[in-house]
Amino acid sequence: MKMNVTQKLIKEHLVSGQMNPGEEIGLKIDQTLTQDATGTMVMLELEAMGVDQAKTEASAQYVDHNLIQDDYRNADDHMFLRSAANRFGLYYSRPGNGVSHPVHMQKLAVPGKTLLGSDSHTCANGCMGMLAMGAGGIDVALAIAGEPYYIKMPQVWGVKLTGKLPDWVSAKDVILEMLRRHDVKGGVGKVIEYYGPGVKELSAMDRHVIANMGAELGATATVFPSDKEIKNFLKVQGREEDWVEVTADRGASYDLHEEIDLSSLEPLIAKPSSPGNVVPVTEVAGEPIYQSYIGSSANPGYRDFAIVAEVVKGKHVAQGLSLDINPSSRQILTQLVDDGHIASLLSAGGRLHQAGCNGCIGMGQAPASGRNSLRTTPRNFPGRSGTKEDSVFLCSPETAAASALTGEITDPRTLEMDYPKVKEPTKVDFEKEKGMLEEPLTSADGLTVELEKGPNISSIPNMAPLQDNFEVPVLLKMGDNISTDEILAGGSRVLPYRSNLPKISTFTFEIVDDNYYERAMELRDDGGHAVVGGYNYGQGSSREHAALAPRYLGLKAVIVKDFARIHLQNLINFGILPLTFVDESEFDKIEQGAVLEFENVRDKIQESNEFEVGVRGKAEKVKVKHSLTDRHLDIILAGGIINWVKNKQQESGV
Amino acid sequence: MKMNVTQKLIKEHLVSGQMNPGEEIGLKIDQTLTQDATGTMVMLELEAMGVDQAKTEASAQYVDHNLIQDDYRNADDHMFLRSAANRFGLYYSRPGNGVSHPVHMQKLAVPGKTLLGSDSHTCANGCMGMLAMGAGGIDVALAIAGEPYYIKMPQVWGVKLTGKLPDWVSAKDVILEMLRRHDVKGGVGKVIEYYGPGVKELSAMDRHVIANMGAELGATATVFPSDKEIKNFLKVQGREEDWVEVTADRGASYDLHEEIDLSSLEPLIAKPSSPGNVVPVTEVAGEPIYQSYIGSSANPGYRDFAIVAEVVKGKHVAQGLSLDINPSSRQILTQLVDDGHIASLLSAGGRLHQAGCNGCIGMGQAPASGRNSLRTTPRNFPGRSGTKEDSVFLCSPETAAASALTGEITDPRTLEMDYPKVKEPTKVDFEKEKGMLEEPLTSADGLTVELEKGPNISSIPNMAPLQDNFEVPVLLKMGDNISTDEILAGGSRVLPYRSNLPKISTFTFEIVDDNYYERAMELRDDGGHAVVGGYNYGQGSSREHAALAPRYLGLKAVIVKDFARIHLQNLINFGILPLTFVDESEFDKIEQGAVLEFENVRDKIQESNEFEVGVRGKAEKVKVKHSLTDRHLDIILAGGIINWVKNKQQESGV
Repeated sequence: MKMNVTQKLIKEHLVSGQMNPGEEIGLKIDQTLTQDATGTMVMLELEAMGVDQAKTEASAQYVDHNLIQDDYRNADDHMFLRSAANRFGLYYSRPGNGVSHPVHMQKLAVPGKTLLGSDSHTCANGCMGMLAMGAGGIDVALAIAGEPYYIKMPQVWGVKLTGKLPDWVSAKDVILEMLRRHDVKGGVGKVIEYYGPGVKELSAMDRHVIANMGAELGATATVFPSDKEIKNFLKVQGREEDWVEVTADRGASYDLHEEIDLSSLEPLIAKPSSPGNVVPVTEVAGEPIYQSYIGSSANPGYRDFAIVAEVVKGKHVAQGLSLDINPSSRQILTQLVDDGHIASLLSAGGRLHQAGCNGCIGMGQAPASGRNSLRTTPRNFPGRSGTKEDSVFLCSPETAAASALTGEITDPRTLEMDYPKVKEPTKVDFEKEKGMLEEPLTSADGLTVELEKGPNISSIPNMAPLQDNFEVPVLLKMGDNISTDEILAGGSRVLPYRSNLPKISTFTFEIVDDNYYERAMELRDDGGHAVVGGYNYGQGSSREHAALAPRYLGLKAVIVKDFARIHLQNLINFGILPLTFVDESEFDKIEQGAVLEFENVRDKIQESNEFEVGVRGKAEKVKVKHSLTDRHLDIILAGGIINWVKNKQQESGV
Repeated sequence: MKMNVTQKLIKEHLVSGQMNPGEEIGLKIDQTLTQDATGTMVMLELEAMGVDQAKTEASAQYVDHNLIQDDYRNADDHMFLRSAANRFGLYYSRPGNGVSHPVHMQKLAVPGKTLLGSDSHTCANGCMGMLAMGAGGIDVALAIAGEPYYIKMPQVWGVKLTGKLPDWVSAKDVILEMLRRHDVKGGVGKVIEYYGPGVKELSAMDRHVIANMGAELGATATVFPSDKEIKNFLKVQGREEDWVEVTADRGASYDLHEEIDLSSLEPLIAKPSSPGNVVPVTEVAGEPIYQSYIGSSANPGYRDFAIVAEVVKGKHVAQGLSLDINPSSRQILTQLVDDGHIASLLSAGGRLHQAGCNGCIGMGQAPASGRNSLRTTPRNFPGRSGTKEDSVFLCSPETAAASALTGEITDPRTLEMDYPKVKEPTKVDFEKEKGMLEEPLTSADGLTVELEKGPNISSIPNMAPLQDNFEVPVLLKMGDNISTDEILAGGSRVLPYRSNLPKISTFTFEIVDDNYYERAMELRDDGGHAVVGGYNYGQGSSREHAALAPRYLGLKAVIVKDFARIHLQNLINFGILPLTFVDESEFDKIEQGAVLEFENVRDKIQESNEFEVGVRGKAEKVKVKHSLTDRHLDIILAGGIINWVKNKQQESGV
């Protein structure tokens, strides 16, 4: 069979399932990345799982999100993550070393490998001929522990690139064109694979730009071939030996087809407040802007900064405008300093920030009320900038540079200058970034490392396996469409406690019932409790804490009319029995406060998908069912995936 | 009479009073500076006063404190301040242009002038042969409106400098030596004047370092002569014509005497948690550190960064250590970039932040729990870093650099290298900072500018003059030692509303009585209210909002046993009648809820320091007194200083 790059990558890593689109497949994971916002919980999960050392070929812990240390908590997280990286045998990328995606590309990405990361833009490394996917924290913890990653076999969407980009049009405009055509759900269930003669016109970092924002199309991954350009990129990075060629077989086919003639593209822009809201820059030219923001994983390359520097060199930004410069990696920052580009940006009036994610994830640089902000970042969802009712446009560095000079949205083709030809650096002085990416310790050394937990970091307590017989009161009876925000809110009041399970649990269900926490704590060591709900239970954000926190408080079973997909998975992962009514009218039979009687439940769930639950004081039982696969059953019986892995680690005699 | 520099500066600006230490004098103010954290309220006060244009020779509005824009509020403040600077004829220093003190020194400071600033380190510009003083926001608003500034005539403390600093010892060690000798109250009521042969050994920026931390000694101001070094500094800044010589007369005397032999100094360090807690570095050498932090107005000079760059050049900071680099001004940042020093700092592992106050005032870079932080900043008060129970040491750039390499507190004299001789730049390329300090508009242009108020910025409403007859209930009766924190709390919950009087007022007295706000609002437009208290009323922080917010809610009179000094002044400034009991036992005669009857009070307070207040339903009246000067009386009768200035502006027919 003639295969495309995606199929080759999947076939090479397939541990279970068939490669039929829609069917569940298990994939071996070679590399992982975690960032600090999600990484602390991943490290606590590794601790709880009893993992001694990463089983992957390379795993890296980056610190790029929470760089603003306005109290001890972020700094404590950094110290904890460093100790955990040492403990578990991971690379540790120090604060200031930059955004995970470009740094991983420079230092660790290897063509032909799989990469799983607890960051939705992990897909960026698909530019290197890798299968790179974003996932939840527990999925990444499992991958580090050596477990496969399970997804539905995607469709492969071949995008043939032809022609060559015109002056003042760059990679960002290519992915904006994809978003213009297909909007933010166009890639769901698909891997986007770029091929054709236009690919060789794009540098490795250009491809990073395009692969990164595959996330905005909702794609499972984006894949580019590993060709001579990738070989050259690795050579510059001093890693030529990591290169292998990964290209589609001649005559390989795709499930879906697309073609983009690069020559036909013009500068594009995503209007507020969706990355899919794309129009030509000419359509909004003249709109006044308050801010021009460059950087982020969506435009992280040397050229993405150098082109702006060349455009503004010897000029000055419009009065009152904020030109915010966010270097993406330490390596690129030092190169830009050495080549005089940082001097040009500063002299033009730029504000230089430390290397990291920064304002792209709402950490500083929020725009003023009612003002337009122009950004080279990947997302402009409402409020993501930190300002409610913000007005953020997404564009290329060329458009951001031209607009910074005029103070209004400006088509860069109208600038009265030749298009600057930026040359990528052909050498890296590694001495200048020494120590920024700390190497993993050996297993022997790692075992001696203590995890450094500040007062806001707390281990995940032991959780019991599923009991065979238990009686639990229904502490909450809820209606339809209960969201994970109602189960456990996000936001700045709650999220700072993301690594402190006892503390974050105090917010559980507080939107639904502000007395739930107290009632649950009373029963926590005395049998626990259950909750009942209606349709679409657990909709919304995928946050795992919405399962972990109630579990910590003693939640044993949830009976609802139906579940939202991701929350169901999270309930299974944390060992909470997820049940639905066989006859939905029986919802009325269970009042809040009723005591449910579970008997021989370990056997029952293995024997059948349906069984009965008693209601104390009532003759009639309630019929419930579950949709657990054999793998799910193993997890639920063990008391959750942490116990399940822990048991495996112990059995394998680690 | 032979005069020292301080006496000359005061005499030149004296508008009232005699130059006898302790006596009140009024001083003409030539220049002002405001920063963004205090400036928004100053601008609202100018608006409320009806000021059309600054009456000073030069006034500048800096944006250096709240640079982290995690929502719309700081960005809105910046836009508001820019519009206000344009409206009132002030210079506007953009975010990213750096810390007010070094920028003011470079761009606007003029020897022989007075400078008043709403920032406690305004005294730094005393290095330029100016009388530079920090003050409250309303004092600076008055100065901008052309009013004199009133202080008690200070003692002049002559500090004779002899000798020359040894290698690895720098200006920071001089001021640390002063703090070692005299602790944090040693300068109260004094102007510190440096003189003698050692002065010429110190550059203008070295003198800035020493003058800046005069604030930590509690001094009213610090004064250096304006000599050839200052002439040269101004020449480099392209302002040679601003130079005048200001030196002490031969044979001038001082009220107090001190001598420091620079040759005898060694590297010093202030231990946690007071700038006065100074010991030789050798005494604490070997203590592990988590962070080495350079920058701030206490070490803002080119050399303060360049010396660190020279020390770490080609080396790398200790593993796990955070070397935080906070450029003090845009000019110095571009010079450091051009000269390769930023490259050295980055290559050694530094984290480069935008130019501004940053972590020095707790805006980012807070240390991890239980870790030592070494800083070149001026203050290490408990928790100022943002981390409660922090452990911050203050030192010179030399000590910070040496310690960054070793990861522990290190005496820089132990480094195995020659002391790098850093040369100050002899030229500034002004094109590279063009637009960062925006020039004032002309009066005609300024009048056309609208103030840009985001949703969190609200004008100060009109306030009525003191009524002649009124009856007001006592809404609160309190005991002794009520602090301004109890009147209006600070902190991150309240302070974000510092420019939004209606909103910040909702927190008034909430610590004392959480129903006060509602009761006061009911009576606000229906006659207002009074409060009663015991001894030391209004102790603690000097914040003006503790008078302005209750005034906004209708507080007309405060009767207590005695007042804390600064709060008394704030009550007068905002037109609240401050009264004490003639017979303290009469405190018991007024219950909470009692209605006080004030009759012909405008006449009474002018005729006598004592008068009687009726208590509704009681035959016996209560005797009260006041300590208001004629100037105070004018202010109180006008309904506060804003009205008082407004009336003057109107009378003068502006």
